[in-house]
Amino acid sequence: MTTPGPDVAPRTDALLRRLVRRDAGTALNKFIARLRIEDLAAAVEHLTWDEQRRLYRLVEDQDLRAQLLAFLPAESVREVTAGLTGEQVAELIDRLEPDDATDVVSELADEMRKQVLAELMDDPTGEEVKELLEYPPDSAGGIMHPMVFTVRDHTSCGQAIASIQASNAEHEVIYYVYVVDPADRLVGVTSLRSLLSNSPKTQIVDIMTRGVISVTPLTDQEEVARFVARYDLLAIPVVGPNREILGVVTVDDIIDVLREEAGEDMLLMAGVNAEPDRSVFRQARSRAGWLLATIFGGLVASEVIGQYTGTLQAVTALAGFIPVITGMGGNVGIQSATLSVRGLAIGRVQPEAPIGFIWEQVRVSLILGALFAGILVLYGIFRHPHDPLVGVSAGSSLFVAICMSGTFGAAMPVALLRAGVDPAVATGPFVTTLIDVVSILVYFNIARLLLGL
Amino acid sequence: MTTPGPDVAPRTDALLRRLVRRDAGTALNKFIARLRIEDLAAAVEHLTWDEQRRLYRLVEDQDLRAQLLAFLPAESVREVTAGLTGEQVAELIDRLEPDDATDVVSELADEMRKQVLAELMDDPTGEEVKELLEYPPDSAGGIMHPMVFTVRDHTSCGQAIASIQASNAEHEVIYYVYVVDPADRLVGVTSLRSLLSNSPKTQIVDIMTRGVISVTPLTDQEEVARFVARYDLLAIPVVGPNREILGVVTVDDIIDVLREEAGEDMLLMAGVNAEPDRSVFRQARSRAGWLLATIFGGLVASEVIGQYTGTLQAVTALAGFIPVITGMGGNVGIQSATLSVRGLAIGRVQPEAPIGFIWEQVRVSLILGALFAGILVLYGIFRHPHDPLVGVSAGSSLFVAICMSGTFGAAMPVALLRAGVDPAVATGPFVTTLIDVVSILVYFNIARLLLGL
Repeated sequence: MTTPGPDVAPRTDALLRRLVRRDAGTALNKFIARLRIEDLAAAVEHLTWDEQRRLYRLVEDQDLRAQLLAFLPAESVREVTAGLTGEQVAELIDRLEPDDATDVVSELADEMRKQVLAELMDDPTGEEVKELLEYPPDSAGGIMHPMVFTVRDHTSCGQAIASIQASNAEHEVIYYVYVVDPADRLVGVTSLRSLLSNSPKTQIVDIMTRGVISVTPLTDQEEVARFVARYDLLAIPVVGPNREILGVVTVDDIIDVLREEAGEDMLLMAGVNAEPDRSVFRQARSRAGWLLATIFGGLVASEVIGQYTGTLQAVTALAGFIPVITGMGGNVGIQSATLSVRGLAIGRVQPEAPIGFIWEQVRVSLILGALFAGILVLYGIFRHPHDPLVGVSAGSSLFVAICMSGTFGAAMPVALLRAGVDPAVATGPFVTTLIDVVSILVYFNIARLLLGL
Repeated sequence: MTTPGPDVAPRTDALLRRLVRRDAGTALNKFIARLRIEDLAAAVEHLTWDEQRRLYRLVEDQDLRAQLLAFLPAESVREVTAGLTGEQVAELIDRLEPDDATDVVSELADEMRKQVLAELMDDPTGEEVKELLEYPPDSAGGIMHPMVFTVRDHTSCGQAIASIQASNAEHEVIYYVYVVDPADRLVGVTSLRSLLSNSPKTQIVDIMTRGVISVTPLTDQEEVARFVARYDLLAIPVVGPNREILGVVTVDDIIDVLREEAGEDMLLMAGVNAEPDRSVFRQARSRAGWLLATIFGGLVASEVIGQYTGTLQAVTALAGFIPVITGMGGNVGIQSATLSVRGLAIGRVQPEAPIGFIWEQVRVSLILGALFAGILVLYGIFRHPHDPLVGVSAGSSLFVAICMSGTFGAAMPVALLRAGVDPAVATGPFVTTLIDVVSILVYFNIARLLLGL
C-alpha cells in the first residue's frame, strides 16, 4: 500500500482515463489493485459517464466492484449499474455490510432497485436492507450500522475481552462497548481500554458510565451530528422505545453529514440544488425557481419605477442611483440573512429567543446605513453641485434601505424556521424580492418630498 | 449524570441566569455539578458578558473552572479572565492537557498571555505550550495532541497490551496504536482490537498496517480534515522530517474544523467576518469592506447610466428594466460562484482542470438566459405594446447579462484560487461590482442599437 492522498488525484485520473480508453484491462486491474479504494472512487468520479461505465466493466475483482458501489456517489452508481442485470447487482450488494448495502440499494434506479430487492428476498442481507430502507435516509435509522458489540452488565471485564477475542467480525471497529441489562436495555457504556485497565474480575456494571447519550431511529441526522460534535463522541447508539439498541451511528458518517449539510446551506441560500447534478437541464431547472422569484421582484420594482415616470423625467439624475440603492440594500440583507441562517444552524441564534440577535443586527445596520448614506450624499453633492438635494435624497433613501434590509434579513430566517420552512431555502428569494421593491418605493417618495416634485 | 442534549439549553440558560443574578453561589455550584461540561459551556455562551464574568467568579471547583476555559469561545475566555491575575490564570491552565492549554493561552488577551507564559516558564506544561504555540493555529501542529501512545515494531501483542494497562493516562482515548522502529520512525499502525484478537506472542510488525497516512505539522487543517474525511480515520499522526511522531490530530478536532470551515466559506462569501463578534462596531467594520466594493460598483454603474441620459429621456420605459437586468445578472453570477467556491472546497472542481465545470456552467447559463430573456420580452411587449423593441432590448440584454454572469461567476473563484487568493473572500465583491456595470453597458448599447437612438 502506498501513502497517497487527495493531492495525487490528478495523476491517478489521467492514468485511469488513458487505461480505460485503451481498453487495457490487465494493466488497469494491476494499477487499481495498488490504490486505496477511497482514492480510486475519487478518481473515478472525475471521469465521464462513458469512461465510468467502461472502467467498471473492466474491473475484475468482485469485492472491489462491490466496494466501489459503496464509495461512488449516487449518480455514478446508477450509471455503472445500468448495463448489469438485477441478479448481478444483487450479488455485488450481498458482499457489502448491511448499512453500505442499504445506501447502494437506495441509490439505484427505481426499476433496478425493485429487481435487486426481489433477488435479495430470502437473504439475510436483504432482510436487513429492507428494514433499514424503512427509515428516512436523513434520519439516524437511515445512516446507522445495525451491528453493535454489546456486553451484559454483570459480565466481568475478563469475560468481555474474551468475547471480543472470539467475535469474528475482525474488520469491525469497536468504538465503544455498550452495556445492556438482562432485558436488553441500554444501561451504560465503557471502552475497550477500560476493560483492559481494570482487573479481569471486575464487573462491568461497576466501571461503566451511566446515562448514555442516545438518539432514536427517527432523530434527524443534523441533530445526531450536533450531539456527536458537542460531546466529542466516536459513536452514538440508536435505541428503540424500550432503550433496546437498534444500531449505532459512527463518527465517519457524522463527518459526511457535516460536510454535506454545511455546504448545503450555502448552496440552498443561493438557490442552487444541494445535490450537484451533471445534467445541465436539471441544473438549470433547479436554479430557475429562485431566479423566477428574482425576476418577479425585479418586474414589480420596474412597475414601481414606472409609477414615477414624471419624477424621473423631471430629474433624470435620480435614475443613476437606483442600482446603488437596490444593490446595497440587497447585499446588507444577504449579509444579515447569512449570519442568521448560519447562527440558527450552529445554535448561536435561538429561534425561541431571537431578539438579542435581531437587535444586534439593527444596530450594525444603523452604523452601516449612516456610513454609506454619508458617502452617497457627499458623492451626490460632488456630482450634482447644482442639485444637492438629489444626493441628499439618495443618501437618506440608502440609510432607510440598509436599516430595513439588515433588520429584515436577520428576522426572516427566524420567522421561516418558526413557520416550519427551511430558512436556507426560502430566505434568498424573500429577501431579494422584497428589498428591491421597498427600497425603490422609499427612494422615490423621499426624492419627491425633498425635491418638491 | 443526566442524559441531556442540545435541546435542554434554553431551560439551562434561564436557570443559570437566575442563579447568577441572585448571586446564589451555593445553588449555582450544586446545579452546575450535575451538568455535562459541554452543556454548561453552551449555556454560558448565551449569557451577557457581565453575567459570564459573575458566573465564573462564583464557580468554586478549580478543575471545572479550568475546563470551562477550554470549552468556552475565545471572546468569553477573554471576558471571564479579565478580572483574574496572571498567576491565577496560569494555575488554571496548568490543570489542562497541553493541547487545550495551548488553545486557551492563544485565546487570552495579549497582556494576560505574556503574564501567563512568564508564570508557566519553568513548568512542563508551559514548555509544551510554548512549543505548540509556534505552529500556526490552523495547521496540523496547531490542533494536534502532543501525547501519543506508541509501541515498538518488534514488541509482541501481549507486551503491548501490558504496556497499555500500565500506562496511567486512564482518560486518554486510544484511537490507534502507532508502531515505531528503533529509530523512533513511524512504520505502521494497528488497533487495540487487533492486539487482542491475535495471539499474545505475535510480533506487532507482523500484523500492523504499513503505509500510514500522516501529515506534517504545517499541513493546513482543512487538508488534514480532507484526509480524515476521505479515509474515515479516527486520528491522523503528525510526523517530523524523519517520520518521528510529534502528535496526533483526532477526529473530534476535525469535526470542529469542518463545522468552522464550512460555515466560514458561506459567511466569507457574503462579506461577513467568519468569527462572530459581539461588538457591533467590529461587526460593522468587518462588513463595510465588502459593501464598499458594492457601493463603488454601484456608483460606477450610476456613472454609466449617466452617460445615457439622452437615451433615457427619449425612452423613459428603459429605466424600469435596470433593476431586473442587474438583479438577475447578479443572482445568476452568485449561483455560479457559490457552486464554484463549494466545488473547489470539496474537490468537485479541480483548479488545474476547471474547463469541464466552466463549460457546464456556460451551458446552464445559456438555458437560463434563453428562458428568462423570453419571459422579459413577452412582459415588455405586453407592457409597452406600442414600443415592442423596448422589451426586445431588455430581453436580449438579459440574455447577454445572464450568460456573462454565469460564466464569470464560475471562472472567477478558480482564477482567484490560482492567484493565491481565498475565493470565498474575494469572489463576492468582484462578481457584484463587475456584473452590474457590464450588464448596464450591454443594456443601453443594445437598446440604442435596436431603438435607433
